[in-house]
Amino acid sequence: MTPPNATFAADDHNCAAEAYERHFHGCLERLRGEQRYRVFADIERISGRFPAAKWRRSDGTVREITVWCSNDYLGMGQHPEVVSALTAAAHRCGAGAGGTRNIAGNNSPLVDLEGELADLHGKEASLVFTSGYVSNQASISTIGKLIPGCVVLSDADNHNSIIEGVRQSNCEKRIFRHNDLGHLESLLREAGDRPKLVVFESVYSMDGDVAPIGAICDLADRYGAMTYLDEVHAVGLYGGHGAGISERDGVMHRVTVIEGTLAKGFGCVGGYIAASRSICDAVRSFAPGFIFTTALPPPIAAAARASVRYLKHSSAEREAHQRQAAATKRALKAAGLPVYPTDTHIVPVIVGDAELCKAAADRLLERHAIYIQPINYPTVPRGTERLRITPSPYHGDSHIAELAAALAETWETLSLA
Amino acid sequence: MTPPNATFAADDHNCAAEAYERHFHGCLERLRGEQRYRVFADIERISGRFPAAKWRRSDGTVREITVWCSNDYLGMGQHPEVVSALTAAAHRCGAGAGGTRNIAGNNSPLVDLEGELADLHGKEASLVFTSGYVSNQASISTIGKLIPGCVVLSDADNHNSIIEGVRQSNCEKRIFRHNDLGHLESLLREAGDRPKLVVFESVYSMDGDVAPIGAICDLADRYGAMTYLDEVHAVGLYGGHGAGISERDGVMHRVTVIEGTLAKGFGCVGGYIAASRSICDAVRSFAPGFIFTTALPPPIAAAARASVRYLKHSSAEREAHQRQAAATKRALKAAGLPVYPTDTHIVPVIVGDAELCKAAADRLLERHAIYIQPINYPTVPRGTERLRITPSPYHGDSHIAELAAALAETWETLSLA
Ligand SMILES: Cc1ncc(COP(=O)(O)O)c(C=O)c1O
Ligand SMILES: Cc1ncc(COP(=O)(O)O)c(C=O)c1O
Repeated sequence: MTPPNATFAADDHNCAAEAYERHFHGCLERLRGEQRYRVFADIERISGRFPAAKWRRSDGTVREITVWCSNDYLGMGQHPEVVSALTAAAHRCGAGAGGTRNIAGNNSPLVDLEGELADLHGKEASLVFTSGYVSNQASISTIGKLIPGCVVLSDADNHNSIIEGVRQSNCEKRIFRHNDLGHLESLLREAGDRPKLVVFESVYSMDGDVAPIGAICDLADRYGAMTYLDEVHAVGLYGGHGAGISERDGVMHRVTVIEGTLAKGFGCVGGYIAASRSICDAVRSFAPGFIFTTALPPPIAAAARASVRYLKHSSAEREAHQRQAAATKRALKAAGLPVYPTDTHIVPVIVGDAELCKAAADRLLERHAIYIQPINYPTVPRGTERLRITPSPYHGDSHIAELAAALAETWETLSLA
Repeated sequence: MTPPNATFAADDHNCAAEAYERHFHGCLERLRGEQRYRVFADIERISGRFPAAKWRRSDGTVREITVWCSNDYLGMGQHPEVVSALTAAAHRCGAGAGGTRNIAGNNSPLVDLEGELADLHGKEASLVFTSGYVSNQASISTIGKLIPGCVVLSDADNHNSIIEGVRQSNCEKRIFRHNDLGHLESLLREAGDRPKLVVFESVYSMDGDVAPIGAICDLADRYGAMTYLDEVHAVGLYGGHGAGISERDGVMHRVTVIEGTLAKGFGCVGGYIAASRSICDAVRSFAPGFIFTTALPPPIAAAARASVRYLKHSSAEREAHQRQAAATKRALKAAGLPVYPTDTHIVPVIVGDAELCKAAADRLLERHAIYIQPINYPTVPRGTERLRITPSPYHGDSHIAELAAALAETWETLSLA
């Protein structure tokens, strides 16, 4: 192989170091050229006043804004029971876990949280990870590796964490067209007698559409496949106890592995799988991304458990959430905005151009004190750039009216379609 | 490819599901057969009484124990300033961040923490991840992918998170013998004009030995390589401000990327890199494991920042830590125990057999109320199974005397070498 970039070859240290620097700088310049360079808004949420937050500008000045793009969908991150579970555990046990699950880090609040999650999903066991991302990456790769010859059938719109998990499993991978049962069936048939794993999501977070879980389970049964369902954008939000779309649809018991996050509907951080004892134990025992990292802190585990427990027994937040999401859609449609129709709490408003999408978001923030992060490629396909709006139970009718007016003004000013 | 396991082929759903279950069960049985099945001790630390903790047995009964294997090396997880920063931020901002760094999750405490860490390591910038594991995996893989033709030179004893990062970079990989400068130099020479990245740790956590960082930087300079140094077991613990071994050795400015954790010496959870602005910005912009996951919660970021700040200005904990580690080594040696000599705070006592190592740990816990997790293969090579003891500033002289007596009793009872 010939050296791709002779500038790295310098014998002189400064020269080589500068060449590397220039190289990274160049990577960033290309990103800027493609309008893909992202600047993070610096936000401090104000507990007790959801969805209000403080926005800290780069010059240090601070302004109060309304957040319309949080994935703390129910505002549970600020729920008094969640915050008090967190602070109580911090006073009782301290901040961090102090070790991996195997070495001194297996704290009681975390063990209790796993019991709570297994119960939530009606499974024998559950296993908690440092994030939903790591749950998918570590569980899918480990399950795939443990089953020789396994074929993974993966929905075309699956999240990056699933894609990485599938890639790292080293299994043969077949992508089925998004939510396309016919295509999935033909791929299952082609895989013949080999072991199979179907991997999909319940709510797809960018388009807000929902998988036909029961029908996918029918196919999985017919062709002898396991099912792995990512309920990250549904746990806490759907079903009688907040176990997700599979609970709502009455098919939870049919799914082999349910994966969820503690960071969105439950308002904390961390992720998990719920499944049979053997599967959880196998992932626990073989997944490097689970084994070789510090356990979730006791205060976080306690807070997440309080959130899961609370939402098991209270449906008021879920009902208000659906009500305000529907009201938001109606208000935006009435204002003539291009709302992408969804069956869920997610309200995408399509712009279709990266620069205009960013300009709209900038105007909303600067002029209207409304924070909605623009969603551009590669998170969504080019030409479908959008504002992704996430109403919560705490976005009242006056917030919604303000949002509709601000969007209408922005659309008119920027001459958007 | 022929089906590896015809039992998965069943048309009948129950049959296939049972076959998968049996398969996972079999994987676990093999692990048990190799004495590699792990049972996690269920521990609840008692804030303010470090190293005391409550041990919850499987029958639900609880017993107070002394923890001798925590990686919260300085007990900072229970430091009043850390706990109060955590609870204050929870009251102010709530539990979770509510989104990814790009979408609503970029909270001010996290931005401030990154400033603090850049300052700690004397670098232009830093970038925080959900864990030290993810920092290594995401940063090394992304840096490697961004540099076409890069050769990664990796120490043979590197941690699993580094190995995964290197693997996922898809770069050509060369392993140099542990801390072997001659071998590293010959591999650097062989790599010729190609871009190169040398990846290593400062303190190796199982043997407690230390890399010759300055000499590795000399070689990197001579051959035009970048350096990536994992200081996970050194940050907070070494150097005038707790920036690690590279600070202690006066070579921090020579290392291209320093990686650390917030979960060990700093007592919280999360990980980071500190490097030039371009490198941090490139990882921020290109690493899927950074982009597509919820940001670290504000309370955790605030707690970690308080810990980093505190240890920048206080050396008392570091001094007491070294003093008690040295006292522990002396006491165990005096009791005739096979202490593996180290230059650091880590005190390995070698058993050399998986079953005996577990038996020793069980006896220490059951009989002496001392918790030291046995370390077996694959964490350490077979034949070097050990008790890995981590004294802290809060392990007083009487704790040490108790430990020495308990170990001596255990060694005698089990007839260990
Ligand atoms: C479908 C899906 N799965 C997993 C994740 C990762 O979850 P977490 O934020 O807990 O890492 C996300 C989003 O962040 C997601 O959208
Ligand atoms: C050398 C090394 N790097 C990275 C990690 C991962 O750090 P964290 O526990 O923060 O994920 C560990 C241990 O857990 C480690 O020993």
